[in-house]
Amino acid sequence: MAIGSEIERLIQLLAKLPGLGPRSARRAALALLKKRDTLLEPLSAALADAAGAIKTCEVCGNLDTASPCAICTDARRDPHLLCVVEDVADLWALERAAIFRGRYHVLGGALSALDGVTPERLNVGGLLARVKQGVDEVILAMNATVEGQTTAHYLMDVLGDIKVTRLAHGVPVGGELDYLDEGTLSAAFKARRAL
Amino acid sequence: MAIGSEIERLIQLLAKLPGLGPRSARRAALALLKKRDTLLEPLSAALADAAGAIKTCEVCGNLDTASPCAICTDARRDPHLLCVVEDVADLWALERAAIFRGRYHVLGGALSALDGVTPERLNVGGLLARVKQGVDEVILAMNATVEGQTTAHYLMDVLGDIKVTRLAHGVPVGGELDYLDEGTLSAAFKARRAL
Repeated sequence: MAIGSEIERLIQLLAKLPGLGPRSARRAALALLKKRDTLLEPLSAALADAAGAIKTCEVCGNLDTASPCAICTDARRDPHLLCVVEDVADLWALERAAIFRGRYHVLGGALSALDGVTPERLNVGGLLARVKQGVDEVILAMNATVEGQTTAHYLMDVLGDIKVTRLAHGVPVGGELDYLDEGTLSAAFKARRAL
Repeated sequence: MAIGSEIERLIQLLAKLPGLGPRSARRAALALLKKRDTLLEPLSAALADAAGAIKTCEVCGNLDTASPCAICTDARRDPHLLCVVEDVADLWALERAAIFRGRYHVLGGALSALDGVTPERLNVGGLLARVKQGVDEVILAMNATVEGQTTAHYLMDVLGDIKVTRLAHGVPVGGELDYLDEGTLSAAFKARRAL
């Protein structure tokens, strides 16, 4: 046996991370073992810190050191604007763009008959309860996938009379028409605006 | 701030792993935080275990829980056959192939004028000392790169009179000629064997 069981176990766990396969997990394990002081030990500590400190926000579903999270308790953010996302990663992406000053609601996925994701498995109840507390606009920021759009249509139905909007479809900024699929081109064409 | 400093730190450290960029490090961090019991805590423990248990073998340079390592102390392995590799990853690759029953010597890299890797920065002294203790054959299993082949030529010179071999170049098993570079085809052609 060339590889000790501690290394094997490390490789197996690293291979479970998205983006790392068995081969890259081996490379990552080797890099960790070679850079013990600068990488392995700090990462071990960071994981332990995160395990202890990070909670899921009971209000919106974001991940943060506090629950309710920093966004939900930020008085400068408009509580009457609610942006619904599938996943915490989407919330982070919107925060990086820094274009939204309201609050979020993380559904925890999208409806999918194939994967058996029914409305009961998403945080829809929490959304409806928050909307009842007084929300002016619900922005549905689902992915532009079949599942995401199915989820958006379902939410539009259950949300009832409130103002519901969704993100625009169109040509990505910096995108070249030649490389775009027909669906995007068709959506961009239909939603064309007067200059 | 949507992302707590604990998560930011975790993402920064994950992004230092080979094969993970900033975006995939974020996805990995999210996966870790979502699968706390099955992924984050086991990985944290595995890293702590590895940090405590894994040593560099003082004889061959392999990584193992013991020094000398399990290969160096395995009496069934021929101590008169020495396979020289650049890196521990290469040793692991050869062990996976299970074709070699001698011992290894890890150089810790390959000569590179560009990266300033001189013979002094590789474990050449250790190799020469081991060879003096009585070795029948030194197999140079360097990468088939310019640096690897430069290193092999250098070692051939300093090893002197002993029997030195290198891995064969040729068509990879399962490889199609149409997809191979000219260098490989030329090497395979020159080294053709009678059937």
